[in-house]
Amino acid sequence: MSLEATIVRIAKAARAASVQMARCAQERKNQALLGIAKLLEAGSSRIQEENQKDLERAREMGLSAAMIDRLTVSRQTVIAMAEGLRDVVGLEDPVGAIARTWRRPNGLQVSRMRIPLGVIGIIYESRPNVTVDAAGLCLKAGNAVILRGGSEAFFSNRILADIISQGLSRAGLPAEAVQLVPVREREAVNILLRQEEDIDLIIPRGGEGLIRFVVQNSKIPVLKHYKGVCHVYVDAGADHSMAEEICFNAKVQRPGVCNAMETLLVHQSEAKAFLPKVAARLQAAGVELRGCQRTLAVLPGIRAAEESDWPAEYLDLILAVRVVQNMDEALAHIDQYGSKHTEAIVTSDYRRARRFVAEADSSVVLVNASTRFNDGGQLGLGAEIGISTSKLHAFGPMGLEELTTTKFVVFGDGQIRS
Amino acid sequence: MSLEATIVRIAKAARAASVQMARCAQERKNQALLGIAKLLEAGSSRIQEENQKDLERAREMGLSAAMIDRLTVSRQTVIAMAEGLRDVVGLEDPVGAIARTWRRPNGLQVSRMRIPLGVIGIIYESRPNVTVDAAGLCLKAGNAVILRGGSEAFFSNRILADIISQGLSRAGLPAEAVQLVPVREREAVNILLRQEEDIDLIIPRGGEGLIRFVVQNSKIPVLKHYKGVCHVYVDAGADHSMAEEICFNAKVQRPGVCNAMETLLVHQSEAKAFLPKVAARLQAAGVELRGCQRTLAVLPGIRAAEESDWPAEYLDLILAVRVVQNMDEALAHIDQYGSKHTEAIVTSDYRRARRFVAEADSSVVLVNASTRFNDGGQLGLGAEIGISTSKLHAFGPMGLEELTTTKFVVFGDGQIRS
Repeated sequence: MSLEATIVRIAKAARAASVQMARCAQERKNQALLGIAKLLEAGSSRIQEENQKDLERAREMGLSAAMIDRLTVSRQTVIAMAEGLRDVVGLEDPVGAIARTWRRPNGLQVSRMRIPLGVIGIIYESRPNVTVDAAGLCLKAGNAVILRGGSEAFFSNRILADIISQGLSRAGLPAEAVQLVPVREREAVNILLRQEEDIDLIIPRGGEGLIRFVVQNSKIPVLKHYKGVCHVYVDAGADHSMAEEICFNAKVQRPGVCNAMETLLVHQSEAKAFLPKVAARLQAAGVELRGCQRTLAVLPGIRAAEESDWPAEYLDLILAVRVVQNMDEALAHIDQYGSKHTEAIVTSDYRRARRFVAEADSSVVLVNASTRFNDGGQLGLGAEIGISTSKLHAFGPMGLEELTTTKFVVFGDGQIRS
Repeated sequence: MSLEATIVRIAKAARAASVQMARCAQERKNQALLGIAKLLEAGSSRIQEENQKDLERAREMGLSAAMIDRLTVSRQTVIAMAEGLRDVVGLEDPVGAIARTWRRPNGLQVSRMRIPLGVIGIIYESRPNVTVDAAGLCLKAGNAVILRGGSEAFFSNRILADIISQGLSRAGLPAEAVQLVPVREREAVNILLRQEEDIDLIIPRGGEGLIRFVVQNSKIPVLKHYKGVCHVYVDAGADHSMAEEICFNAKVQRPGVCNAMETLLVHQSEAKAFLPKVAARLQAAGVELRGCQRTLAVLPGIRAAEESDWPAEYLDLILAVRVVQNMDEALAHIDQYGSKHTEAIVTSDYRRARRFVAEADSSVVLVNASTRFNDGGQLGLGAEIGISTSKLHAFGPMGLEELTTTKFVVFGDGQIRS
């Protein structure tokens, strides 16, 4: 079969499976997820054997230690995948929920009912656990899913997808509700992105290059974020010790992730008292600081920031620092250089807190809390399939609800339109 | 300036205006809309003069009477446009509303707050009233809008957009919050559809050809419906007189619109008693019937339906009729030939009503009511900017709320992540 025919067949099978999934009661979906969790644990050695094939190939190809680390599936990884599925079982099923109901003057009762999106394509790199995590969330929300993992994780993803399909069959659900694109060729992605009749949504997970490629080539709607250039703004009159804790946490706790702080904005009235203390603590933790001219006046030892520092997503122990004249300047900076991902203000002023919340145009805006809370689990969504920084359909972390939509349901007694 | 530069400039100006619009209080938006309504009424003769230029050109080009009718702006049309804006003033502003609030165990208070989408592009054909209707809804929801009307309505749209911008300026809002693409060249649409950095959403309104063109060429998310192939299913045991009223209303009341019935499905147990009566009434109203073999057995005089009749959107006094063995067959027919627009069941059976509502995969599903109720106004959304039959972001009629999204707002007291 040609590559094109293979992908088309997969997409059509997913569409057919999605119809069955949409009609499936919560209990049976949960039963399937619990069964898959068991099969994963029971299949741990087989999974690790397949993973070895990927690891050998990765070493031959000279992949970096960090990449090999991300690719490695240990017994612990398998147990974590199974536990992740059990957590999803504990989440409330959004499907069938009535989001709202109202009555019309003519007696019609109108409701908005949650329904699955249909078929979701996930395109991702390296980490094989995405195969299980993403499939679990999509299935719980009543969708079918097509997975296209990185070619470096080919064997690992294949066995994981096989086990998931097996678990689905055993629970009486269609095995095709989860399918892995079974080839390494990159052209498969292009073909997948053209199946707009049978795929409702594409979620790319990986580096900016992958995501731009997907957006450029997709005929299907894409939910994504390119990068997280997150700001903390320390307002005039802010509590310095609170500001210090938040800044330290936002930068240092896990610098390699999208919700870490990349730029610190400090009101000019606080710069002299606040910056030296926080700088010393950040530098002691290995953070390199890059400051604007006004920052350099207070911290003469640090490197001068260049224009390219303001829009930078370092994902590393580097921090750009800028002293601003007032909140207008802070908000203008965020507008110009931000990525609509996460912004925080540290303030004691009620009106400025309200203004920041209203005007910072970002998927998550926090007052007196670390940027690191932009995460589906932390915000109480249960789990997340990713974060969206574009506004259509979902803006911010996406949980089960964002994997659904609503339809209108209308109950009447013979009403006609006059 | 080149065409490309013109469009880029428009998109960037819209983005800048959208930031101001997003921060604008409901009162000022309403004031602007009321001001525009007055200016429209005061400018009625000028609008009609400009409209004459379009009409003369249309006659020269030999446009059909129906198209010329749709293009014509009378004094009454202008008054209706102004009244439409006043209706929008009466609708609740969705911006700033807190969709939901919850507390996390660590004390963080998390909310989802409604915000505008940003910049919306509307691409439409002939009817100049869309210029005012669409702009009004987009503005009320705090967005900036770029309008690209049909070239046949060039002069009419230009003066309408000018009047809207004038009204915005007078209310202290940016005139660029509403801009019309000021050229006739079709290439302008292609360029517009590539401004994904500055435009958040495209809504095409018009025939299937326009919509397919937009979807094929857009780098920006598109909300649209291609067509409405709407079904009424008359269930076993249905009340025949209710079924007859609903079918007659759904087919005859306004056959040229997307929520009119195109195919009637009748349970075999009802065919013999129900079909002759409803057929006679429909035929008396000028409806041509095309039936399946089982229908022909009951209505021998009518034309046999061909395969191409089942997915047809007639938009005319034609109705396809099929007798089905049971509800499974009705739902399978809808799945195969439907357009996910509107489906209705007429039934007296509780369980089958529940099942139809759960399983019919359509943006609006009705029990014992006419398909003609799939309309934002009729369902209580106040007004609509269109109907979406794709599931992402909006599914069904789109009102003010669908022109917004939500961001997460988090209030803390110094929380950091451990």
